[in-house]
Amino acid sequence: MSVTARQVRLASRPVGFPDESTWELTTEELGAPEDGRFIVEIDHVSIDPAMRGWLSDVRSYVPPVKIGAVMRAAATGTVIESAHPDFPVGQRVRGTFGVTTHAVSDGRGVDVIDLDVAPPATWLGALGMPGMTAYFGLFDVGRLRDGETVVVSGAAGAVGSVVGQLAKAHGCRVIGIAGGPDKCAWLEEIGFDVAIDYKSTNVLKALRSAAPEGIDVYFDNVGGDILDAALANLRMHARVVLCGAIASYNDESLPPGPRRYMSLLVFRASMTGFLVFDYEDRYAEGVAEIGRLIGSGDLVARETIVEGGVEAFPEALLGIYRGINTGKLVLAL
Amino acid sequence: MSVTARQVRLASRPVGFPDESTWELTTEELGAPEDGRFIVEIDHVSIDPAMRGWLSDVRSYVPPVKIGAVMRAAATGTVIESAHPDFPVGQRVRGTFGVTTHAVSDGRGVDVIDLDVAPPATWLGALGMPGMTAYFGLFDVGRLRDGETVVVSGAAGAVGSVVGQLAKAHGCRVIGIAGGPDKCAWLEEIGFDVAIDYKSTNVLKALRSAAPEGIDVYFDNVGGDILDAALANLRMHARVVLCGAIASYNDESLPPGPRRYMSLLVFRASMTGFLVFDYEDRYAEGVAEIGRLIGSGDLVARETIVEGGVEAFPEALLGIYRGINTGKLVLAL
Repeated sequence: MSVTARQVRLASRPVGFPDESTWELTTEELGAPEDGRFIVEIDHVSIDPAMRGWLSDVRSYVPPVKIGAVMRAAATGTVIESAHPDFPVGQRVRGTFGVTTHAVSDGRGVDVIDLDVAPPATWLGALGMPGMTAYFGLFDVGRLRDGETVVVSGAAGAVGSVVGQLAKAHGCRVIGIAGGPDKCAWLEEIGFDVAIDYKSTNVLKALRSAAPEGIDVYFDNVGGDILDAALANLRMHARVVLCGAIASYNDESLPPGPRRYMSLLVFRASMTGFLVFDYEDRYAEGVAEIGRLIGSGDLVARETIVEGGVEAFPEALLGIYRGINTGKLVLAL
Repeated sequence: MSVTARQVRLASRPVGFPDESTWELTTEELGAPEDGRFIVEIDHVSIDPAMRGWLSDVRSYVPPVKIGAVMRAAATGTVIESAHPDFPVGQRVRGTFGVTTHAVSDGRGVDVIDLDVAPPATWLGALGMPGMTAYFGLFDVGRLRDGETVVVSGAAGAVGSVVGQLAKAHGCRVIGIAGGPDKCAWLEEIGFDVAIDYKSTNVLKALRSAAPEGIDVYFDNVGGDILDAALANLRMHARVVLCGAIASYNDESLPPGPRRYMSLLVFRASMTGFLVFDYEDRYAEGVAEIGRLIGSGDLVARETIVEGGVEAFPEALLGIYRGINTGKLVLAL
């Protein structure tokens, strides 16, 4: 049996935001899998803010996507043909399969997922890389202690919404920063103590009033002015966890740095960057904890699902930088 | 007996660099000390980069110097009149006596200094606050391990020169950044592996070549472009120790922040601010270690001594921002 995969490939490196010239839609015939390989039919593709970074030819934590290659993406699917003993036909799996309808895999980096715990999209969100980022960023990098004051930006996003709910589950005061009244209303609905709409509020002043004794842990997903506003409102020995800087991922030159970084000195505070991949051998711990909180109803895993084939990927990717998602943004094929 | 103290007082808060309108020279008659007090005749006054910060009316780690008050400064001197059992006449002491020829003290925050270990100016430098800053910044905040690669800016200054020599004593590769060929020559003389003259060199490229495998600990005394150059050259799990930002202390508005701060994420690195005062209860440890290295000849304590009365203070303070000093800048009365 042969299947035809429809794929989104990188045609040229974008300057600024990706556009129609960035992508190329291709098809590829996948023959029967060789020994030790299997074919996955993809059902959900993860859309991540970090994707923009993978398109630029710069030294970073992963190599850039090559021109002509299938766009890198985490995805979930079902094994439909197999010559691999560990991945029989019908097995539900997750892996970095790319933006494609079908993928061939040798099983490396592929996880079996349990749909009794949560549906596929959640395995790309709260139980996937974003959830792991929240968990290890908050507890390992941020060294969160029960009862502290936590601020998270990008709070209604895939990572931020899990950060806030994990911190609430540990008895912390949690302040979320997000864009727009709908996102902020949702944050309050899922238990955030305060939600600040950065589109209509002076964040620096709002943080001063929401955290009058200062911030113990600031989990930064956005960079820019919001990072500065948090730096101005730290408490002594605060920890700033650098997770991302979505505000500038499409900038054509290096944006300004955090002007208030000397707050780190005044408050004897630290700012630490991390990458979730370093915690790969401990993901089971994170999945167990977040899975437990989902099961008990103490953590709401939400996804914004864009319907469409792989053809919908370019528009969905732009959507994440416009903030169309509440929770994890997923493309359903 | 009565002594007349000549003092430098803050007349008005400067905008940008201090000038003649900033200071006022006054005299004050000091009568015989009350019970529990003593009078110190000052011999050396410490000139510190941090002084500029104390002149601005902003919330910081110490309250600003009040208008009309004697300028805050660490100093050494000799007890000349005493009604305090622990500080007899003739005792050599160090304290925050201010920019004055004579000071009354109740002994709080005053240390006895041992001139057999080092002369008074060294008790303001390598054995004083700058030396403690180097010691605790490097080992506690920077968590330096033997054999690592250390970069220090302001390397020929009071803090930087001790940082580099302490790191060398721990078998580290040490790269110093300083301004001008004379300072760089001195750094090589006292054992730095590489000295980079930021006035004539592209620091980013020079660091890449001097530390091809990256920097483990960057001890930042200057901020600005040099901090960015170091951030671009980190090694995985690097520690950036924020000690100061002399490049911008006289700026009228908040200078740009470190544009390359996202290097902290790529390199899983941290940037941590600290203040030496938090280590006050462990100063004895730092003095013992640095004193031992001075005694064995493994650490050179150097001071640039400006001669003159308290009247020479305003010019000496401007001098530190022009970088006139090699080692600790001290005003000798």
